[in-house]
Amino acid sequence: MRKVVLYIAMSLDGYIAEEDGSVAFLDEVASDSQQEDYNTFYNTIDTVIMGNSTYTQIVNELSPNEWFYKGKECYVYSKTTSGVTENVKYTNLDPKKLIEQIRAERDGKDIWIIGGSEIVELFIKDNLIDDYFVYVLPTILGRGIPLFKTGIQRTNLNLKKVSNLEQLVKLEYSKKQV
Amino acid sequence: MRKVVLYIAMSLDGYIAEEDGSVAFLDEVASDSQQEDYNTFYNTIDTVIMGNSTYTQIVNELSPNEWFYKGKECYVYSKTTSGVTENVKYTNLDPKKLIEQIRAERDGKDIWIIGGSEIVELFIKDNLIDDYFVYVLPTILGRGIPLFKTGIQRTNLNLKKVSNLEQLVKLEYSKKQV
Repeated sequence: MRKVVLYIAMSLDGYIAEEDGSVAFLDEVASDSQQEDYNTFYNTIDTVIMGNSTYTQIVNELSPNEWFYKGKECYVYSKTTSGVTENVKYTNLDPKKLIEQIRAERDGKDIWIIGGSEIVELFIKDNLIDDYFVYVLPTILGRGIPLFKTGIQRTNLNLKKVSNLEQLVKLEYSKKQV
Repeated sequence: MRKVVLYIAMSLDGYIAEEDGSVAFLDEVASDSQQEDYNTFYNTIDTVIMGNSTYTQIVNELSPNEWFYKGKECYVYSKTTSGVTENVKYTNLDPKKLIEQIRAERDGKDIWIIGGSEIVELFIKDNLIDDYFVYVLPTILGRGIPLFKTGIQRTNLNLKKVSNLEQLVKLEYSKKQV
């Protein structure tokens, strides 16, 4: 079955970006092994789901000229925008329904949940995330955008593997079967 | 030189205890290997430094009949209480001065900083913590007492080792030499 996966890096104190969305602190620990790891992961997914603020940041700042996730099926959660563009499909479906729909449409690769606390909370709420790949940076950031929002549903995971890519720790968890 | 060390467990979202101070979620992943790891660590330290709320919780709730850290030299940070009891010495010294004083008094084992964001912030501010042993639980707690306070000084660490004690991840960092 096509898994729903989280693949993201956070500081030791749980932030995925600075308050202004900057991720410069990630570049400080970038390495070839991390890039290879990402490439391998990227081949295991064919669908991405992100929030509208992540989408906006990508098209306005990070990669204005070329769509980041070319060749992947892309969903953007938005309460205000709907429809389909060349690169993405806007959605406001209940996350559980969206996943059911994606899985029913065709057989395929895994589904990547991209972004911060808003979108993560949406998918944790119904325990929809099957695999968690959480990278921990050797940095205490002090403030920023958290990966997990205060008040997020308590969730017990199952540790599958732990390793490191130079200074980056890679934690692999799977959903605990209830 | 006697090192200043942090040895503490947190949830994947960075909490060391529930909002009421309860740490029942730690017991869920307790294991023999974790106990052995703690025993080994405990033999490497001869001095502990804690905040007053940790101290109060220990003597009132966790271990009212017997002092937890018998045989260790114990300092309790307090703005309101001073003096010395049978088990602890109250202090309000600047953390840097306290560490200098402890190191100057005698040769000995390492110094353990016990507790949450308040005491951790005090010692991170002047980059006094030499080694960080941070245990990550396979739990997203949602709310509680954070290990690192919002606004804590940005700190870059050096990853030395990563391993796991069954479901518990053990991250070992050292201070980055500036």
